[in-house]
Amino acid sequence: MTIDKGIDDVQASDFDALFIPGGFSPDQLRADDRFVNFVDYFIENDKPLLAICHGPQLLIQTNKLKGRTVTGFTSIRPDLKNAGATVKDEEVVVDRNIVTSRTPDDLPAFDRESLKLLQS
Amino acid sequence: MTIDKGIDDVQASDFDALFIPGGFSPDQLRADDRFVNFVDYFIENDKPLLAICHGPQLLIQTNKLKGRTVTGFTSIRPDLKNAGATVKDEEVVVDRNIVTSRTPDDLPAFDRESLKLLQS
Repeated sequence: MTIDKGIDDVQASDFDALFIPGGFSPDQLRADDRFVNFVDYFIENDKPLLAICHGPQLLIQTNKLKGRTVTGFTSIRPDLKNAGATVKDEEVVVDRNIVTSRTPDDLPAFDRESLKLLQS
Repeated sequence: MTIDKGIDDVQASDFDALFIPGGFSPDQLRADDRFVNFVDYFIENDKPLLAICHGPQLLIQTNKLKGRTVTGFTSIRPDLKNAGATVKDEEVVVDRNIVTSRTPDDLPAFDRESLKLLQS
C-alpha cells in the first residue's frame, strides 16, 4: 500500500467520496481529531461515505450517527447502536450517502451499492 | 504466552478475579458470547474485574456499564460513555469491584489499585 498524502496535506473538500476500510486502523484513526474531522465533512455535506468491517467505528466519534442506519463488524455493532444509529445485520446498508457492510464476505454487495451511489 | 485452558474448559465461578489485558484481542473476544458471559459473572457477583487499554470494550457487551465509572484507551472512551458509563480521563479508576486504566503508562497506578482490591 502506497500512501499518496498525509492527513495534513489534504482537505476533505478536495475529495468526492471517502472509503474507510476495516482492520484495526479505524481504532487508531478515530483517536485523532484530524481524521474524525475529515470523516465529518462527508457526513455534513452528504458526500459518499463508504465503510466496511471496523470502518464505521470512525463515524462514532463524529457524534452524527443518531438517526442514521448502518451496519458493521459484529463486535462494533453495540457501539454503533449506543451511538444512536439503527443497526442492521445485513450484507450492505445504504442510508442516503452512507454505505456500510459487515465483513469482506459482503464485498460484492458493498461494491455494487457503492458503485451505484458513486454513479448516481 | 501459554494458554492453560480454553473458554469451554472453565467456569467463571471457579475464579476469584478477572484481568482483561488490552491490544486487539478484546475486539475479538467481545464478538463471542462465551467470553462476554464470563465477564458478566464478575460484574454480577461484584468480584474483582481489572481491565486496561482496550480491555474495557468487553464490558460494553454485558450491557451493565450504566451507572458505573470507568476509563479506557482514548479511542474507546466514546463507546464506554455511549454504553452508559461515566468515563474519566485518569490513570486509574476504581468503581467498587471494577478497576480500569487507559494505557501501559498507567500500569503502576493500575497495579497498585488492583492489588489493593485483591488484598481487601
